[in-house]
Amino acid sequence: MAPLTPRLVVPIDVKKQPWEQEVPLHNRWHPDIPPVADVTQGELFRVEMVDCTGGQVRDDDSADDIKSLDFASPHYLSGPLRVVDAEGVPASPGDLLAVEICNLGPLPGDEWGYTGTFEREHGGGFLTDHFPSARKAIWYFEGIYAHSPQIPGVRFPGLTHPGIVGTAPSAELLNIWNQRERELVEAGHESLKLCQVLHQRPLASLPTSHNCLLGKMQEGTAEWEKIANEAARTIPGRENGGNCDIKNLSRGSKVYLPVFVEGANLSTGDMHFSQGDGEVSFCGAIEMSGFLELKCEIIRGGMKEYLTPIGPTPLHVNPIFEIGPVEPRFSEWLVFEGISVDESGKQHFLDASVAYKRAVLNAIEYLSRFGYSKEQVYILLSCCPCEGRISGIVDAPNAVATLAIPTAIFDQCTVT
Amino acid sequence: MAPLTPRLVVPIDVKKQPWEQEVPLHNRWHPDIPPVADVTQGELFRVEMVDCTGGQVRDDDSADDIKSLDFASPHYLSGPLRVVDAEGVPASPGDLLAVEICNLGPLPGDEWGYTGTFEREHGGGFLTDHFPSARKAIWYFEGIYAHSPQIPGVRFPGLTHPGIVGTAPSAELLNIWNQRERELVEAGHESLKLCQVLHQRPLASLPTSHNCLLGKMQEGTAEWEKIANEAARTIPGRENGGNCDIKNLSRGSKVYLPVFVEGANLSTGDMHFSQGDGEVSFCGAIEMSGFLELKCEIIRGGMKEYLTPIGPTPLHVNPIFEIGPVEPRFSEWLVFEGISVDESGKQHFLDASVAYKRAVLNAIEYLSRFGYSKEQVYILLSCCPCEGRISGIVDAPNAVATLAIPTAIFDQCTVT
Amino acid sequence: MAPLTPRLVVPIDVKKQPWEQEVPLHNRWHPDIPPVADVTQGELFRVEMVDCTGGQVRDDDSADDIKSLDFASPHYLSGPLRVVDAEGVPASPGDLLAVEICNLGPLPGDEWGYTGTFEREHGGGFLTDHFPSARKAIWYFEGIYAHSPQIPGVRFPGLTHPGIVGTAPSAELLNIWNQRERELVEAGHESLKLCQVLHQRPLASLPTSHNCLLGKMQEGTAEWEKIANEAARTIPGRENGGNCDIKNLSRGSKVYLPVFVEGANLSTGDMHFSQGDGEVSFCGAIEMSGFLELKCEIIRGGMKEYLTPIGPTPLHVNPIFEIGPVEPRFSEWLVFEGISVDESGKQHFLDASVAYKRAVLNAIEYLSRFGYSKEQVYILLSCCPCEGRISGIVDAPNAVATLAIPTAIFDQCTVT
Amino acid sequence: MAPLTPRLVVPIDVKKQPWEQEVPLHNRWHPDIPPVADVTQGELFRVEMVDCTGGQVRDDDSADDIKSLDFASPHYLSGPLRVVDAEGVPASPGDLLAVEICNLGPLPGDEWGYTGTFEREHGGGFLTDHFPSARKAIWYFEGIYAHSPQIPGVRFPGLTHPGIVGTAPSAELLNIWNQRERELVEAGHESLKLCQVLHQRPLASLPTSHNCLLGKMQEGTAEWEKIANEAARTIPGRENGGNCDIKNLSRGSKVYLPVFVEGANLSTGDMHFSQGDGEVSFCGAIEMSGFLELKCEIIRGGMKEYLTPIGPTPLHVNPIFEIGPVEPRFSEWLVFEGISVDESGKQHFLDASVAYKRAVLNAIEYLSRFGYSKEQVYILLSCCPCEGRISGIVDAPNAVATLAIPTAIFDQCTVT
Repeated sequence: MAPLTPRLVVPIDVKKQPWEQEVPLHNRWHPDIPPVADVTQGELFRVEMVDCTGGQVRDDDSADDIKSLDFASPHYLSGPLRVVDAEGVPASPGDLLAVEICNLGPLPGDEWGYTGTFEREHGGGFLTDHFPSARKAIWYFEGIYAHSPQIPGVRFPGLTHPGIVGTAPSAELLNIWNQRERELVEAGHESLKLCQVLHQRPLASLPTSHNCLLGKMQEGTAEWEKIANEAARTIPGRENGGNCDIKNLSRGSKVYLPVFVEGANLSTGDMHFSQGDGEVSFCGAIEMSGFLELKCEIIRGGMKEYLTPIGPTPLHVNPIFEIGPVEPRFSEWLVFEGISVDESGKQHFLDASVAYKRAVLNAIEYLSRFGYSKEQVYILLSCCPCEGRISGIVDAPNAVATLAIPTAIFDQCTVT
Repeated sequence: MAPLTPRLVVPIDVKKQPWEQEVPLHNRWHPDIPPVADVTQGELFRVEMVDCTGGQVRDDDSADDIKSLDFASPHYLSGPLRVVDAEGVPASPGDLLAVEICNLGPLPGDEWGYTGTFEREHGGGFLTDHFPSARKAIWYFEGIYAHSPQIPGVRFPGLTHPGIVGTAPSAELLNIWNQRERELVEAGHESLKLCQVLHQRPLASLPTSHNCLLGKMQEGTAEWEKIANEAARTIPGRENGGNCDIKNLSRGSKVYLPVFVEGANLSTGDMHFSQGDGEVSFCGAIEMSGFLELKCEIIRGGMKEYLTPIGPTPLHVNPIFEIGPVEPRFSEWLVFEGISVDESGKQHFLDASVAYKRAVLNAIEYLSRFGYSKEQVYILLSCCPCEGRISGIVDAPNAVATLAIPTAIFDQCTVT
Repeated sequence: MAPLTPRLVVPIDVKKQPWEQEVPLHNRWHPDIPPVADVTQGELFRVEMVDCTGGQVRDDDSADDIKSLDFASPHYLSGPLRVVDAEGVPASPGDLLAVEICNLGPLPGDEWGYTGTFEREHGGGFLTDHFPSARKAIWYFEGIYAHSPQIPGVRFPGLTHPGIVGTAPSAELLNIWNQRERELVEAGHESLKLCQVLHQRPLASLPTSHNCLLGKMQEGTAEWEKIANEAARTIPGRENGGNCDIKNLSRGSKVYLPVFVEGANLSTGDMHFSQGDGEVSFCGAIEMSGFLELKCEIIRGGMKEYLTPIGPTPLHVNPIFEIGPVEPRFSEWLVFEGISVDESGKQHFLDASVAYKRAVLNAIEYLSRFGYSKEQVYILLSCCPCEGRISGIVDAPNAVATLAIPTAIFDQCTVT
Repeated sequence: MAPLTPRLVVPIDVKKQPWEQEVPLHNRWHPDIPPVADVTQGELFRVEMVDCTGGQVRDDDSADDIKSLDFASPHYLSGPLRVVDAEGVPASPGDLLAVEICNLGPLPGDEWGYTGTFEREHGGGFLTDHFPSARKAIWYFEGIYAHSPQIPGVRFPGLTHPGIVGTAPSAELLNIWNQRERELVEAGHESLKLCQVLHQRPLASLPTSHNCLLGKMQEGTAEWEKIANEAARTIPGRENGGNCDIKNLSRGSKVYLPVFVEGANLSTGDMHFSQGDGEVSFCGAIEMSGFLELKCEIIRGGMKEYLTPIGPTPLHVNPIFEIGPVEPRFSEWLVFEGISVDESGKQHFLDASVAYKRAVLNAIEYLSRFGYSKEQVYILLSCCPCEGRISGIVDAPNAVATLAIPTAIFDQCTVT
């Protein structure tokens, strides 16, 4: 007889603060954040997670909490977990770590979430130039469905997934990250090309010890200070996976992650009940606390064999995913298109970001004619299971992007 | 009894040149290109089309034809068709033209197609910096399936669609196009940001009378010269629809096009047996001759009511689409991810084009480990039914794009 | 370069009678009906077919033609085709014949079909006891869609398929068929158990030379007489495939047929634009003329290796099918249930036919509350892409069957 | 703020016997079994359930427990629940009760199930004449996936559902049930027609006080005795829903149940992790303990308005279902066909049960050639998500049934 129930390796008490949890959390990427537990290849285990802000957003009508959110905090991650094989030998740099998502969901007793967009001055979103103020929608879950008092008339099933699944970077990789992001910030606006107002968003979030949480490390020690000042922030997805926000990474899918440090040091967090491609409003999925039931496999030497470094070093890789046979499917879609001409009428060259921005704006304008405010639609498109596609990326000068919305998310007549 | 068979309004003889067809073709957008036929709202009609190059690419192993292709020729379009209502009143500027794609396919007797990528010096493709030479694959059709002697081991069903469905621009809209694209060309490389080598591609294709074909207009007349020098090229998708290359615009879908001139002047062309999102190799779908069976509806005043101008004028709109219930579905996908760090390791700010480039490069590297050359995979990913997604567009500085490949395109064991 | 276009092996002229066609048709199963053409393994070929009645049903509002239909005529089949391998060696008894359906559709110029139910006295249907009179609906095709003036408010895409794909029986198998069906007829009503009124339907259609058509054989000869009196009727599906009416055997699927005679002698016919599981009204698909584009493979000795004789002889086999990745999918279904208690309230023991009858009756009653007559719904459920399932077949005494109707077949609001 | 977490109305402790549970269970249908709790229209509530046998089957390799199972016990149901509207007015006879299945799953800590087939002498199964001995497979769950040490090489996602959802019958309806089932038993084998060996199965399970469990009622009282001797067994699905075993009644679907008694008295049980259409091996789903999260709506007078009595009284109705947009989908299927000729070669008249039996036998024979025993395949086809269709029910004398198996259930190569 096999052990039946996933072993709980990281429990969460949502009534406690992130730094008060029994198994300590972390909110940075660094090779020296010590593992909180071991998991064995083939074993089914359960990781619980706070929501990305660690409970700073309340279940109420006011967006004040979103407005005042401290950007140095998210995302609170569970882990790192040290992955070992059946003989107890840990994953090694160069291995590939296959992580199967066997199950996931909200934490029992905490079945709600929120979608927000930030103030222009505090992080903004994809359409900050159009929607500069903080907004929030609360979502209540009824099993697989979510509905919101702030956006009536919609109810949809979640394609639930973790926004963040990642392994720890090596010191070398961390250094690459910090350097390239610092160069971007230093180059400043001259490196930009997106519609002007986007300039107002931070270019990148560089390391800071402010609000840094490093798991089992003792805050205030010299080592803590060193790591806190080096550790990468969790906002962007990077070579280690991280905040990829790939909405299809749901039940039954599998992610193949590179291993950069001994034990792989797997961390997860930022659970999303649902998200649209692009997560356009930034705090834009239905953010929630939740759990993952995972199973790991170590593929020895697999990084070299299966991943594909594109760039100056063998570390410049990206994870690979498999989507399994159980993804929800919709059969009817309403599709909006955008081209890489911005709102001022200016022509951009094959810029898929500008094209997608136009597609999203078109969808917002259209749907706002059916009784919604544009802010409501902005948030809805950020979190409902809509698909954002790069349809054409070669027909100079216009990239063409599309946003496809499953019509089934809108309340429809039933048998009665 | 209803008329049973779609009325053939534009016949094609593939043995003839584009300029020799019985109903003359055109390869530019201009309000004054005269309609070749009337179609009535509600009527089912059939339009046949040459392939985008008008027969310049041959069914052989050599890419020389791709190499020497004259860029001023494509795309040869069928139409324009003047759309009238049941009372014979034509569609008017401000109306919306709903075009349902009831059926489509290759032309009987011409069941083959090709996928190519151009020389860097002659148009290039999304990955010209990696694959600077012209390449070609021929595809043979077996009903819904395509297979290629140049890319053995793959066989997939086509999600067949027209690359181009569009209405004629008004003079005012045409002027907007020409002006913004000219400004881009004049600003030159300084307006660019994509990976350096892409600079080598033309920024835009401005009007030229060279190889211009204007339907019923007599070449050489003063009016012809005037129009030929004003008329917009067909490469990019624009406000009128045009070369959107949206692969899901297949059987049973519907496109809602703005009407800018009396009669709408609907043109179609650039039939694709199949295409991947992005059409990355540029001449990148499975290009073929083909037919469309269409049905039009005029929604009076619908442009203002349903389309959503984003930009300086009410003409800055984009079409809307509906995808119907019959799109082929795949259940298992292999997914590659890219972030907006380019091959040199440089960090870009939320650039979905760069992120998608990385995802495509990752997929090429991976699949090339299974016995394919990288050039083969580049072409395959351009034309197979893969999905290109903008997964994350807010997590500064990294955009995350994904490329999902249905594993069913690869030959699989059958019952025997 | 491969040959591009499927070779037309059986052309049809729909203006001619079945017995006037250039390549002669047949409407019986018999080993000695001579092949009309050879096809080679791997070659793509095209077979055209008259509708099952050979043109006896007219495109008008009257069901008189359905009423007076001579049951000895259908189904007119195209073929038999002798299948040979690349070396010209024909398929042999014991081989397996894999037939891929690469493409199919209505015949150009004949894009319409009909659905009927027979008079109780002339063949009836599954619900003859409820609907004893002949009825007819005409369907017009708009590409992939069908709509009917007799059943307004519905429009659906066809899951088009051949009702009949089969190989010729050997003399031994033919003898088995004739004997078991004769025994059923002779045993008469005492062998029955279905709701009483179904008794009124013929138990089986035994061989008759009346209206018999035997392809290349000369009518009136002694050999013709002999064969006509032995040859099996085409109504039921049997070991050779035949009239299986499996609605999912559409584009891209594959059927593995047993070979009983040299050359396999493949015949096809009874094209359906669409059909619901069960084809309840009997003449119940959208019957049409049409074409198939096929590709055959001979698996030597495959009958023994892959088919699974269940019964007294090795000939008691059934074909196997593969459904490919391109079947249309619907996401929302309305489901009606039936149990094996008949309309009189009588309990039957695990009878799936009775249970399905109840499910169909429930669906008819329900849908008739939305403005349709029951006869309209009966015909609609016979031909729309609904699914009939055996849900429970063990919970004595009730079998449970379900009928699931995709809600998308009913006209829905579009973007306007 | 809405209440976030479903209210637990029936808790289960799997370490206790069915008759020891805190909220008492029942295993019969009767109008006088008293409700155990009230639930309010619109409220989200949670019901936990023991497995159908109430824990009599053990997680081990021996089928002895299956063999000795007392048939008078199953199914242990949770409830009845009295449904009231917002004002506290209970559902009334003639109303329709809409029950939405918002979520469901195995009970935490009890993530395993079993599939069995009974001895011929103790209930048998659909293929008892072929497989007369008891067999058992244990399934372990890894999130959405199940795998079995007894059937290696398969792993599939569950389309999890409750086998039983039903309302209490009225005295009148109960009387109808008891009478018709008694008549069947009394008529005995002469009322049968299915393949002879099926005779060996019990025709129906009539009321018995043996092992009867009646919730809050005190065993041994006169009232208990009366009800126990009248109450209907739970084996078959009937007018009240009950043991329908419809595998698609999963997450996000909705069932519309008739209300026969005040309060509706909703009961649920017989949780299935997965089941194939037909549930052919009888104890044939992956049987498990589990939970349902439900939401009810009372449609006043809806029974008359929406349900469709077919039979001698207005009580002869069946529930209606809606399947939502989140059902797992498979794209490739292997399909086996059966016709209504039994294994002895005897012809039956349009008998879908016989045809389905043949299809299942064909599938078993075929799959047993790939290293499985026939008993393994029998059990697999009973519990994997295969589809059983009534393909043709009119082509006398042969019914055609098909069994479609998603090929993805078999272990396939992954990215590595």
